[in-house]
Amino acid sequence: MTRISLDQAQTIVTAALKEGRTLGLKPLSVVVLDAGGHMVAFAREDGSSNLRPQIATAKASGALALGVSSRAIGDMAIERPTFVNAAAGLNPAGIVPAAGGVLIRDESGDLLGAVGVTGDTSDNDEKAAIAGVAAAGLSV
Amino acid sequence: MTRISLDQAQTIVTAALKEGRTLGLKPLSVVVLDAGGHMVAFAREDGSSNLRPQIATAKASGALALGVSSRAIGDMAIERPTFVNAAAGLNPAGIVPAAGGVLIRDESGDLLGAVGVTGDTSDNDEKAAIAGVAAAGLSV
Amino acid sequence: MTRISLDQAQTIVTAALKEGRTLGLKPLSVVVLDAGGHMVAFAREDGSSNLRPQIATAKASGALALGVSSRAIGDMAIERPTFVNAAAGLNPAGIVPAAGGVLIRDESGDLLGAVGVTGDTSDNDEKAAIAGVAAAGLSV
Amino acid sequence: MTRISLDQAQTIVTAALKEGRTLGLKPLSVVVLDAGGHMVAFAREDGSSNLRPQIATAKASGALALGVSSRAIGDMAIERPTFVNAAAGLNPAGIVPAAGGVLIRDESGDLLGAVGVTGDTSDNDEKAAIAGVAAAGLSV
Repeated sequence: MTRISLDQAQTIVTAALKEGRTLGLKPLSVVVLDAGGHMVAFAREDGSSNLRPQIATAKASGALALGVSSRAIGDMAIERPTFVNAAAGLNPAGIVPAAGGVLIRDESGDLLGAVGVTGDTSDNDEKAAIAGVAAAGLSV
Repeated sequence: MTRISLDQAQTIVTAALKEGRTLGLKPLSVVVLDAGGHMVAFAREDGSSNLRPQIATAKASGALALGVSSRAIGDMAIERPTFVNAAAGLNPAGIVPAAGGVLIRDESGDLLGAVGVTGDTSDNDEKAAIAGVAAAGLSV
Repeated sequence: MTRISLDQAQTIVTAALKEGRTLGLKPLSVVVLDAGGHMVAFAREDGSSNLRPQIATAKASGALALGVSSRAIGDMAIERPTFVNAAAGLNPAGIVPAAGGVLIRDESGDLLGAVGVTGDTSDNDEKAAIAGVAAAGLSV
Repeated sequence: MTRISLDQAQTIVTAALKEGRTLGLKPLSVVVLDAGGHMVAFAREDGSSNLRPQIATAKASGALALGVSSRAIGDMAIERPTFVNAAAGLNPAGIVPAAGGVLIRDESGDLLGAVGVTGDTSDNDEKAAIAGVAAAGLSV
């Protein structure tokens, strides 16, 4: 079975943090989960606050739970708030409906996992997440 | 009261998935619960995301919890959001207030259980659920 | 990514239940989880009691949580009860430390998921689980 | 109090995993928490099972919760099982009372955080944890 490797996950984390420094973002936290939603790698920059591990994880886990990016879940939360709220309560890691959580796919389009970033604005978090996935030669 | 059999439940699951393929829906997950809310049969199609078992179950369990379809609970959630939210917190399986969860009744109108479908729009999920119940010669 | 398919999972469920009938076992419940611990297929035979879905799931989920069969976790629970008890509390689906939950591997030895069976003695539950996996041409 | 930096935490993770490879241990998961119990860095090697992030975290978090290594908590669990069990229920991350979770101190003896390792025997997990802390020039 092709699973995301620790090497790939660390490449994503390192590149996402580097993108944050390049863009001058606030301190970031970055998580990579496998397709089952289990953590493979995580890093929290100095100055990134206490709940960031859980927020990053809930962005990535939510994307895997519903099969779309956390940005799409954010849109869904505006149209159907009670559905997203109910789904969040069913997911052990919760769901954060805001950009910064993206699915990770291989060259065949198969799902490998998800990355979640938090610390700056949701739009900027997502930029860092996408840069991380690209650096590993994978697709969102 | 007649209890729903595994044979009936598998007929419902198979027919609901077949309806999904006929209508060209996204990958679906389908659960059948007995009248006590306990799972009898479940299937998740390839590509259906991680939280779909819980969402399907919370649609069906919610229907049994309040005695109406999850579509009716969706309407109720607009009129009385705090009531539905509180009820969801009381139900171990949660409640998803969106169409796709329907009660299953026999020819006498006796309650046999509920089916829950998720994966496409709520309206389409419900079509698959109703097709499943009809295929077993039962009523919603 | 090779993931266990719904077809494979249904083959396992059907064969495990058939083995139960061949051996004259009590009514069984059988679950198949993917490698991430998310349900793919489930069936509960007529007469199988209310908590069987959760017990079957906690056997299979526990196997995936710790990377060994639930029989091995049962042995572990005798040697290191506090460890297994603590781990069970950390796993959202819990852990049932008794035979009947086995890992599912493909021909390359890669992990595809787990099957959990409950209803008869743990030894008999495990026989049904192993028969199910074999029927799908996969390995435990 | 000096806070543990991401650089220090990554040094600990990398060195603990390297020690695991040197000793020929099973695939490991390693977490570093700051003194407040919040995750700074985490890595799960290929083949390390699903619940390892939570187990590693519960070893390290338990050490910080009670102010001693998780090995000492394991001894405590034999002498005072109900106390450790009650404490585990109070700690959001739980407590795993088995070796592999060690406190991290700076040259002044000030507490910086904790590292948790899981995947092999508890004794071996602890060896990897201690090697990680030593590689960062810190003390257990």
